Amino acid sequence: MHTPPQLTELKARLREIDDLEMAAALLNWDQTTYMPPGGAAARGRQLATLGRIIHEKRIDPAIGRLLDALRSYEESLPPDSPDAALIRVTRRDYERAMRVPAAFTAELYEHTAASYDVWSRARPANDFMAVLPYLERTLDLSRRFAEFFPGYEHIADPLIDMADYGMRAATIKQVFAELRQGLIPLVEQITVQPPVDDSCLRQFFPEAQQWAFGVEVITALGYDFSRGRQDKTLHPFMTKFSLNDVRITTRVDEYDLGSALFSTIHEAGHAMYEQGIAQAFEGTPLASGTSAGMHESQSRLWENIVGRSLPFWEYFYPRLQATFPDQLGNVPLETFYRAINKVQRSLIRTEADEVTYNLHVILRFDLELALLEGTLAVRDLPEAWRERYRSDLGVAPPDDRDGVLQDVHWYGGLIGGAFQGYTLGNIMSVQLFDAALRDHPDIPQQIGSGRFDTLREWMREHVYRHGRALDADDILRRATGRSLDVQPYLAYLWRKYG
Amino acid sequence: MHTPPQLTELKARLREIDDLEMAAALLNWDQTTYMPPGGAAARGRQLATLGRIIHEKRIDPAIGRLLDALRSYEESLPPDSPDAALIRVTRRDYERAMRVPAAFTAELYEHTAASYDVWSRARPANDFMAVLPYLERTLDLSRRFAEFFPGYEHIADPLIDMADYGMRAATIKQVFAELRQGLIPLVEQITVQPPVDDSCLRQFFPEAQQWAFGVEVITALGYDFSRGRQDKTLHPFMTKFSLNDVRITTRVDEYDLGSALFSTIHEAGHAMYEQGIAQAFEGTPLASGTSAGMHESQSRLWENIVGRSLPFWEYFYPRLQATFPDQLGNVPLETFYRAINKVQRSLIRTEADEVTYNLHVILRFDLELALLEGTLAVRDLPEAWRERYRSDLGVAPPDDRDGVLQDVHWYGGLIGGAFQGYTLGNIMSVQLFDAALRDHPDIPQQIGSGRFDTLREWMREHVYRHGRALDADDILRRATGRSLDVQPYLAYLWRKYG
Repeated sequence: MHTPPQLTELKARLREIDDLEMAAALLNWDQTTYMPPGGAAARGRQLATLGRIIHEKRIDPAIGRLLDALRSYEESLPPDSPDAALIRVTRRDYERAMRVPAAFTAELYEHTAASYDVWSRARPANDFMAVLPYLERTLDLSRRFAEFFPGYEHIADPLIDMADYGMRAATIKQVFAELRQGLIPLVEQITVQPPVDDSCLRQFFPEAQQWAFGVEVITALGYDFSRGRQDKTLHPFMTKFSLNDVRITTRVDEYDLGSALFSTIHEAGHAMYEQGIAQAFEGTPLASGTSAGMHESQSRLWENIVGRSLPFWEYFYPRLQATFPDQLGNVPLETFYRAINKVQRSLIRTEADEVTYNLHVILRFDLELALLEGTLAVRDLPEAWRERYRSDLGVAPPDDRDGVLQDVHWYGGLIGGAFQGYTLGNIMSVQLFDAALRDHPDIPQQIGSGRFDTLREWMREHVYRHGRALDADDILRRATGRSLDVQPYLAYLWRKYG
Repeated sequence: MHTPPQLTELKARLREIDDLEMAAALLNWDQTTYMPPGGAAARGRQLATLGRIIHEKRIDPAIGRLLDALRSYEESLPPDSPDAALIRVTRRDYERAMRVPAAFTAELYEHTAASYDVWSRARPANDFMAVLPYLERTLDLSRRFAEFFPGYEHIADPLIDMADYGMRAATIKQVFAELRQGLIPLVEQITVQPPVDDSCLRQFFPEAQQWAFGVEVITALGYDFSRGRQDKTLHPFMTKFSLNDVRITTRVDEYDLGSALFSTIHEAGHAMYEQGIAQAFEGTPLASGTSAGMHESQSRLWENIVGRSLPFWEYFYPRLQATFPDQLGNVPLETFYRAINKVQRSLIRTEADEVTYNLHVILRFDLELALLEGTLAVRDLPEAWRERYRSDLGVAPPDDRDGVLQDVHWYGGLIGGAFQGYTLGNIMSVQLFDAALRDHPDIPQQIGSGRFDTLREWMREHVYRHGRALDADDILRRATGRSLDVQPYLAYLWRKYG
């Protein structure tokens, strides 16, 4: 069967939308990397304009007509075929976009840029009051967004569904409850032990060498610098301007060796996912990771399952020692390995260990639900944050800088759906790694000799290349034989830390 | 009289166009500064899409209707009022844009991105054959562009008019003839002398210190880094994403102290012009320098009349010596001053001295006319280039890298109108500087003590703030009492070099 002309026209329209989205992504990237302070006001307007035009093009009734005309062609195709997937995902996006008025999208873009700008100054100044009115408006916008999708069970559901298609608040609450049940005894077992000495990581490590070592590591993992680059930002992230220009950012703390290194590996994990998507999907809605959770499964897999494993450091530690001979020359591998895997009750999510990390996520998820439900006022958020840290993690932030201001998410986007993906990703990362191990039991040995291609190519084959052509649950079931399952993840944590 | 609603609507439409143009400018900036090689193909498509949408919006018949409806309001205003200028310039742009089909603009954007990409690799490889087919297509596009404006006297006129409104090939030929007549005896007088020793500039000057010194200089001149930044590119340029985000780029040669320094001052001159435009014009077609020539008058004024003057270096030379004590500690100011003003028959336009610089420009202008007229084939351009260098400058490039491949203009834009602005700018720069001196005879003394505010504020008052509200000729006549006049420029050159 030949490609129907409607599909050709649909693809041209989708490419135009993609071009504009990529332009907007570059404006965002520049805003957080190189833009001088004077540029902020105009950048907000520019992003608002692009957002409005993108939205207008997404909801162009011509797309609806093309999708209708393509229904019989779609039904004639195997559901797995790229065209069927493209039409299916485009229809899903179109039906979603149709519900959100263009004026709302423009308002949201402009507000988000302004809010990000205020936050980027408020966080170092420890000034929650500066962001308060912005955050209140963000909550209002988030509720209004959810209201465009009536019939939800929980007001967070439409927001969660945007990030993790098919997920709902009720499901996640259940998953998180099962996880918490398994985590609490593990955290208790670990934290009654004397604390691990991680002072080897707290020496002075000059930025340039840290940067170079991080680049060496992610190049070995398979991040392709000819199709990407790394820059500095306040909050590390991955973004892309095409499948062949996938960029990452990081930050460097010269007195904490783990901070930049693991964030670099984390973002490279995201980026390898995007770089690994089938080139045929370029310029279409399929050319993207399939969900927030699946994306995190890859960042967390490379950061933790690989990057904090013993075989990985059997290979890389001598190289790290050669980079920092004065600081690490006399530190044995085992001391270093224990230091980078130190479990402790701490304040900062992005620097938390694997075990307690999920407690940071679960409390944010709960706070998001409470804000959206209206049972928690934005004004009371800092205190609620401290309270949950005290009860869940046994520590409370001395200020908002390291408390409620620490993550960019609520200040650069909506409230709701922002955090659950991290823990869903942790859970999936172990399911996927276990499946790769079943196919290639020698992966740990390969990692120990600096070879990452078998694991990476397995991920490319089973996860990356599909882009959004398969949903997260499809990928999991095909690759591992099961849907989302907390138990392998708990088993991994108990094995490593119990 | 109240603002008519049509003007409010017009401004909203112009702002939208401006937002998209600024987004496209950022995509271009990124392409030449930070984009990894893999990004090139998609970037070309993205720029083509933005170019097409911008063009569609520029030629929206609604703009024509608004302009018609505003005619009586316009006639009721003093011609100098901002609204009158806005309507006048918008009408001029609209009538021009209406002549160029959207598909042509998209083709041009895409071709330009591809051509730039090829050139950026072909130049270091000295590979003219690689760019030949691109340049042939560029010439074809340039001719087709001119054909959209029938009734021209010379096929280059529509292209020249785009860059220097009101100028034509015939006028420029006349101006250049008068200039050449004055220049030739000066060049001959100088080049019979023994050559100046500029070896003090040819030592090793590490990039980081060169960069820092350049930043110190342009900060003192008045370039505002809180509304701009400087990055590295192959070919230095100025670009902007709003009046409060005006960026410059430079390149550094560690064995040529003058290269980065004077290009930095040159681009800062362009940028101060844009940073000095009235903020009320932001987001409108008035928020831009008024012509290529007027823009160059500012870059060349700061680079040459100020930056290569003795008072300037009486102030800065001790600072430069402190930055490079080993290299310059024993070099007297006079030796350095003579070195940076060395006149010689040379190959590279951007590094040419003030006197011979115009010969580089005039020959390019003549080659552009010949290409457009069809009397010179693109294939024969390298040889024609060598021939003209031999006859006009007495030197011939050993290869195309330092010959016909040296300037980005023809490889990143159209042929025609690309170069005359440099020499028009030189001429105007002296007219404007002389007028500033008449108002403030102590400017040279101020420069000698590191004060640039009187000169800069004079330029802001008489040139910068007007943006495109005044044409180049208006600015010249109001600020200096005369239209374009070669004689003050020749007098300046004879005074300084004769």
